[in-house]
Amino acid sequence: MITSEEIQEHNIAHNVTHKRAFTHIAHQLADKGILVEEIIKSLNNFQVAIPSWALGTGGTRFGRFPGGGEPRSLEEKIADVGLLHQLNASSGAISLHIPWDIPDNANAIKALAAQYNLKFDAVNSNTFQDQPDAEHSYKFGSLCHVDKAVRNQAIAHNKEVIDYGVELGSKSLTVWLADGSTFPGQHNFREALMRTQDSLAQIYSHLPDDWTMLVEYKPYEPNFYSMVIPDWGTSHLLASSLGEKALSLVDLGHHLPNTNIEQIVAILMMQNKLGGFHFNDSKYGDDDLTVGSLKPYQLFLIFNELVDGMKNTKNPELSWMIDASHNLKDPLEDLLQSVDAIKIAYAQALTIDRAALKEAQENCDVAAAQSILQDAFRTDVRSIVAESRAQNGGALDPIGAYRHVNVRKRLIQERGEVTVSTGL
Amino acid sequence: MITSEEIQEHNIAHNVTHKRAFTHIAHQLADKGILVEEIIKSLNNFQVAIPSWALGTGGTRFGRFPGGGEPRSLEEKIADVGLLHQLNASSGAISLHIPWDIPDNANAIKALAAQYNLKFDAVNSNTFQDQPDAEHSYKFGSLCHVDKAVRNQAIAHNKEVIDYGVELGSKSLTVWLADGSTFPGQHNFREALMRTQDSLAQIYSHLPDDWTMLVEYKPYEPNFYSMVIPDWGTSHLLASSLGEKALSLVDLGHHLPNTNIEQIVAILMMQNKLGGFHFNDSKYGDDDLTVGSLKPYQLFLIFNELVDGMKNTKNPELSWMIDASHNLKDPLEDLLQSVDAIKIAYAQALTIDRAALKEAQENCDVAAAQSILQDAFRTDVRSIVAESRAQNGGALDPIGAYRHVNVRKRLIQERGEVTVSTGL
Amino acid sequence: MITSEEIQEHNIAHNVTHKRAFTHIAHQLADKGILVEEIIKSLNNFQVAIPSWALGTGGTRFGRFPGGGEPRSLEEKIADVGLLHQLNASSGAISLHIPWDIPDNANAIKALAAQYNLKFDAVNSNTFQDQPDAEHSYKFGSLCHVDKAVRNQAIAHNKEVIDYGVELGSKSLTVWLADGSTFPGQHNFREALMRTQDSLAQIYSHLPDDWTMLVEYKPYEPNFYSMVIPDWGTSHLLASSLGEKALSLVDLGHHLPNTNIEQIVAILMMQNKLGGFHFNDSKYGDDDLTVGSLKPYQLFLIFNELVDGMKNTKNPELSWMIDASHNLKDPLEDLLQSVDAIKIAYAQALTIDRAALKEAQENCDVAAAQSILQDAFRTDVRSIVAESRAQNGGALDPIGAYRHVNVRKRLIQERGEVTVSTGL
Amino acid sequence: MITSEEIQEHNIAHNVTHKRAFTHIAHQLADKGILVEEIIKSLNNFQVAIPSWALGTGGTRFGRFPGGGEPRSLEEKIADVGLLHQLNASSGAISLHIPWDIPDNANAIKALAAQYNLKFDAVNSNTFQDQPDAEHSYKFGSLCHVDKAVRNQAIAHNKEVIDYGVELGSKSLTVWLADGSTFPGQHNFREALMRTQDSLAQIYSHLPDDWTMLVEYKPYEPNFYSMVIPDWGTSHLLASSLGEKALSLVDLGHHLPNTNIEQIVAILMMQNKLGGFHFNDSKYGDDDLTVGSLKPYQLFLIFNELVDGMKNTKNPELSWMIDASHNLKDPLEDLLQSVDAIKIAYAQALTIDRAALKEAQENCDVAAAQSILQDAFRTDVRSIVAESRAQNGGALDPIGAYRHVNVRKRLIQERGEVTVSTGL
Repeated sequence: MITSEEIQEHNIAHNVTHKRAFTHIAHQLADKGILVEEIIKSLNNFQVAIPSWALGTGGTRFGRFPGGGEPRSLEEKIADVGLLHQLNASSGAISLHIPWDIPDNANAIKALAAQYNLKFDAVNSNTFQDQPDAEHSYKFGSLCHVDKAVRNQAIAHNKEVIDYGVELGSKSLTVWLADGSTFPGQHNFREALMRTQDSLAQIYSHLPDDWTMLVEYKPYEPNFYSMVIPDWGTSHLLASSLGEKALSLVDLGHHLPNTNIEQIVAILMMQNKLGGFHFNDSKYGDDDLTVGSLKPYQLFLIFNELVDGMKNTKNPELSWMIDASHNLKDPLEDLLQSVDAIKIAYAQALTIDRAALKEAQENCDVAAAQSILQDAFRTDVRSIVAESRAQNGGALDPIGAYRHVNVRKRLIQERGEVTVSTGL
Repeated sequence: MITSEEIQEHNIAHNVTHKRAFTHIAHQLADKGILVEEIIKSLNNFQVAIPSWALGTGGTRFGRFPGGGEPRSLEEKIADVGLLHQLNASSGAISLHIPWDIPDNANAIKALAAQYNLKFDAVNSNTFQDQPDAEHSYKFGSLCHVDKAVRNQAIAHNKEVIDYGVELGSKSLTVWLADGSTFPGQHNFREALMRTQDSLAQIYSHLPDDWTMLVEYKPYEPNFYSMVIPDWGTSHLLASSLGEKALSLVDLGHHLPNTNIEQIVAILMMQNKLGGFHFNDSKYGDDDLTVGSLKPYQLFLIFNELVDGMKNTKNPELSWMIDASHNLKDPLEDLLQSVDAIKIAYAQALTIDRAALKEAQENCDVAAAQSILQDAFRTDVRSIVAESRAQNGGALDPIGAYRHVNVRKRLIQERGEVTVSTGL
Repeated sequence: MITSEEIQEHNIAHNVTHKRAFTHIAHQLADKGILVEEIIKSLNNFQVAIPSWALGTGGTRFGRFPGGGEPRSLEEKIADVGLLHQLNASSGAISLHIPWDIPDNANAIKALAAQYNLKFDAVNSNTFQDQPDAEHSYKFGSLCHVDKAVRNQAIAHNKEVIDYGVELGSKSLTVWLADGSTFPGQHNFREALMRTQDSLAQIYSHLPDDWTMLVEYKPYEPNFYSMVIPDWGTSHLLASSLGEKALSLVDLGHHLPNTNIEQIVAILMMQNKLGGFHFNDSKYGDDDLTVGSLKPYQLFLIFNELVDGMKNTKNPELSWMIDASHNLKDPLEDLLQSVDAIKIAYAQALTIDRAALKEAQENCDVAAAQSILQDAFRTDVRSIVAESRAQNGGALDPIGAYRHVNVRKRLIQERGEVTVSTGL
Repeated sequence: MITSEEIQEHNIAHNVTHKRAFTHIAHQLADKGILVEEIIKSLNNFQVAIPSWALGTGGTRFGRFPGGGEPRSLEEKIADVGLLHQLNASSGAISLHIPWDIPDNANAIKALAAQYNLKFDAVNSNTFQDQPDAEHSYKFGSLCHVDKAVRNQAIAHNKEVIDYGVELGSKSLTVWLADGSTFPGQHNFREALMRTQDSLAQIYSHLPDDWTMLVEYKPYEPNFYSMVIPDWGTSHLLASSLGEKALSLVDLGHHLPNTNIEQIVAILMMQNKLGGFHFNDSKYGDDDLTVGSLKPYQLFLIFNELVDGMKNTKNPELSWMIDASHNLKDPLEDLLQSVDAIKIAYAQALTIDRAALKEAQENCDVAAAQSILQDAFRTDVRSIVAESRAQNGGALDPIGAYRHVNVRKRLIQERGEVTVSTGL
């Protein structure tokens, strides 16, 4: 949908401005004793997976306003992620959702992904919707259900998802449970959690040795009184009981108002039990907005913990993924904005003067500690992120390039104006 | 679906227990100087409208798990409300939603409703979804839209809704706007609000003299950064600018965490500007749960204000409606629970010793003031509500009667297992 | 301050009304197959400790408006709790706070308490304020402090508190930490938590064999960015690492908005790790209001879990305490209201038809499950609680009796109008 | 405490780095068609008042950990604000609090302030604490009190505050009311609000023609069930009823969780009814933290509205003030950080490409609108703010200079280690 030449051409047009900004920031960081090349190296190694369901227009319970040119098949979803990766050089993985993305021919799909330099990140199971051919309904839960037959169906589904993942080269299973209760009395909390623990143990036993199981938590929605795994504490309880391969997954939108998420990140890493991230942003609940669009400082503080934890703990390597819903924006533009925001936060966190921060902390110098973090946050690192992209063949200004050649128009021409929402 | 005889039979089976409880509460209230007959009189006059969209199974953006026997037409919706009214003697009105409930023949529909002793409450417009034949999309707003053509379409739709309402004998239009923005920068707040004000003024000008316009507010969802009418203050600003016939409508789920809703009720009534209620309950956001299922004391405190305000202000008569979503329960059972909870709260509020409360307030006797309210709340008034129902031909135990004759099974036999969700 | 005769006299005046209500509820419960005597037996065994600091007027950072007749010494505090116990027969324990309540002569204090039939519940340490003679300040933390000398001072203080408790016959230490950070960067979360864990381990090693350590959590205040033990998950992590004698303590006001506290209770009991409760109520944060004054249904749902968990888990016996602040009400009246609310919720939870609830849960009959809980909640059990009090020499109407003989006036006559706030 | 020479010397040491950064940003803005001089001009005219109570260490209800060298008198408070103004060239006003800051000799105080180039901003009344000599207590309210004598005392106090302000050259009165209720039933909401309205009208009648009355709102604390003026809607209701000179005041910490404050700013300015700001930051409630320390993007979005509103509405000139509590940091450093954060947000808001934003809004180009705001926010404008300071005799790096010459040590030498908390 866009050629390398078009990207390079676009880059050339932006090069003078870019170089000036990049030279300035390199100089500025050098004064602080930081080599900009080191930051670029870290950015080059950073890949954020794109979930297959994020490539179309999302909606709310009140309605959905689709756009044109959305992908109609797994192949087209892979093509879309490939396009993102071409533009930003950081979207080199796709996260599939079963049953929405069952590959007919795993080898062909693997080959296609390889063409785009894409890997298969975590696979995701779905027990929050009923499938047309399903024997049992998940209306009242899946892994926690009072009825063993329903639980068994959900366990078998998760095992099947692992099998699909093995074929494609994935290395982890993400379990997000919609299970919960909507009214007091509906659940016996204790028993529901014990059943869930038992079901997860059965799925865990099916996990290959080099896989991880990522246990997500969420306080509410779609159930509105309780969720079986409402918070990091419950997720951690389950992951600890399951074994070393089970880890907690943090979705930024899955917290009660005012939660200090960065502290949760730190505590989980202290236990070597943080498995991965679902990035998005929110103001009210699980709003699933563009990463960094509402609370960029929180995002930076989270990366501050991640950078520190990755260096100073034995936490396993993390799985990074976007998990947002694009109700109003072109999904591809939205994803480009999200990945960009993540990399900016990461780059800023890499410019923190950690020795000075440590010293301030040891002196209880609160004002200095705050200033050190804010100095990094207020530093304009965008040209470093751009430089990293360009060095890897991407665009200095991904959305600019995307709009310049009018990719969406090309997609509509190929796929049509009216598209079918895949999945949700 | 249920005969009067079946109801009476069921009542007879419960009569001894009922009479004992009723005699006790009558005695208990008499000690406080309250005549139970006065409370029954108030309850007899109390009708809560049922919205046409609440008769089917609701869902979330993650999915929907439909039940059987749901109404397939406006006629069947009216029949369902009629059934509720038969059982609880308090659901004598239906609130229609356009375009989901456009009557083909208004006179026939009016006649049908009259058979069930039903009136037509407020009519509701819909500018939060696109209709198949619509020229313009509401993706980016309706009454607030930057494009005048979109606004005009939305204004025309609202006027049309008024016209339908006039035909059926409704006396008010409820305007709920999904309009808002999902990202900073999307809206110029001021201009969006001014456009909305202007659009509402045009709709207002189409309002018959004996009608009211109810302006709803909501802080978020489906937009996740701002809503054009986010709070009672903005609703009141608009209603004041529009004129006497415009009033604010309070939906219990449309508030930020920890909001003191009962105080809002009091302030609006002090201005004679409270128009009506959408009853439901919630723990997190606009959860649309059964009334009284999570915060029964809040519901009681709201009725405390309503009873006080209806007596001591010149606020116009209120429009009462349920607005809940039934994702897991049988919608009809859910509605019976909701109406019951509302009447219990109302009855409790009627047993408050207002002279003593006034005295405690004037003496700054906080402990006594609390005890007076809690005394009323802790009083078991259920048999009064049951007595009121029975006196009007309803069931002492509506859900019990409904289940006893297995109404749902009868509905499924008539309408089928697989039903089409109407509307949402 | 009040004689047994005065209480009995007051009871006689209320006896007719009481008996009528009690007879009715006994009848009502018998219909459900519940013996009212069983409930009374459970209530008789139920004692809620009164914290020594709750006997005076509390305040906020904006000011304090003291009342008259407040206790001026540990002896007078014990007398006040004795008075409460005399009236409600359920306040047979006092929880001391060190250094506010250091006994000069432990034996004399024990003897005094015995006269009032009082035991010594958990002792509480204080590392959130600096004491006049302290070498180190807790301005920047205590058990988590970066400076080992400060941590050692705080550890030694906690050990000393245990020693005081041993002398008085207490069996547990409650550790509430104000430790946290108020600005991003101030703390290294991981290291602060590891230091805290290490400090707690040292205190734990000082614990007698038959003691428990109760680890409290709180999300914010007095620190406003992070608390070292912000949530149940962190408290549980610490308690698990410390050993069997360490348990989590739930304070109802220490949660983020919308938290499902009853679920936390259930999860902790499932782990046999719930140690106790600090009862209060709140609308916004740690408001420390009268128990049951804002969210009585939540209190009932918590007792639903407690009753279930005490029966069906091996969770150790729980430590019950009020922890509220009385800024406006007479503290003794406020405490009477709180204990009453707790016992009402407990009694209601004891009337739940658990077999029917279990059946509803197993049938996914959500409407029935809700109705079963609400039936218990709507039942007026106040006369059962009164009967239990009266059977144990207490007052049918404790506040009524307290006011009737004007206890506060007597206290003021003895202690004076102007009193010194003890502690906070 | 610091000489001009010391500041200049410090500036010289930072000049090379500063100039490089300033040259870069000037270039960068020029590319966008923005003259950096225009921004500097706006910054030069921007003054934020310092409240007299913010110069000492604050505390919470749990305790207070004072620092040394705090001001002991009104004269020393003025000296402290003078010092801040010397360093940042933007703190040219002080906001007094009566009765904490009653001037013995108004003319002498005015002369002293003039020496430091300080004006007197809004004066603040206090009816949330009892004064030693007061006849009536505000325990149960002031302007809303049921007892007319209490109301009259509070009204007279507010009039007296105006009189003090007139003597000093202030032009507005800020009314913050702690009035509210802590338990349901304590207040009749309607009557409490009507009494408040009546009291305010009496105070308003005492207001000189060129004065404004700023009506603050707050949802909770120190009352924990309701506040008489809980939200902007109520504040606006009162201000509208009082007259043109009454305006609403927004304190950033006085909102429920997740409130969209920037929208409130826009709506009030649309009505020409925004009077001023109390700046601070918070994560949970009225945390009173350093401005910009938690939610810098929210601060920027608020300035986006302010810049837009000041240009496009007839809203009167705004009164800007910091209102924070310094529990852990050196108060003067904290205030320097706050003023700096405000000016950075203001400068960023001045770099928004408003023509492009308008165009994006008119095209419903949500992604572009977001990018335009974020582009301004991500721009590093710190050197512009520094340049503006330096041009006015202030320090390029105020805290650096303050620490370099060790001002705090000088203050302690003069005023002592142990200081008396003034006011709170």
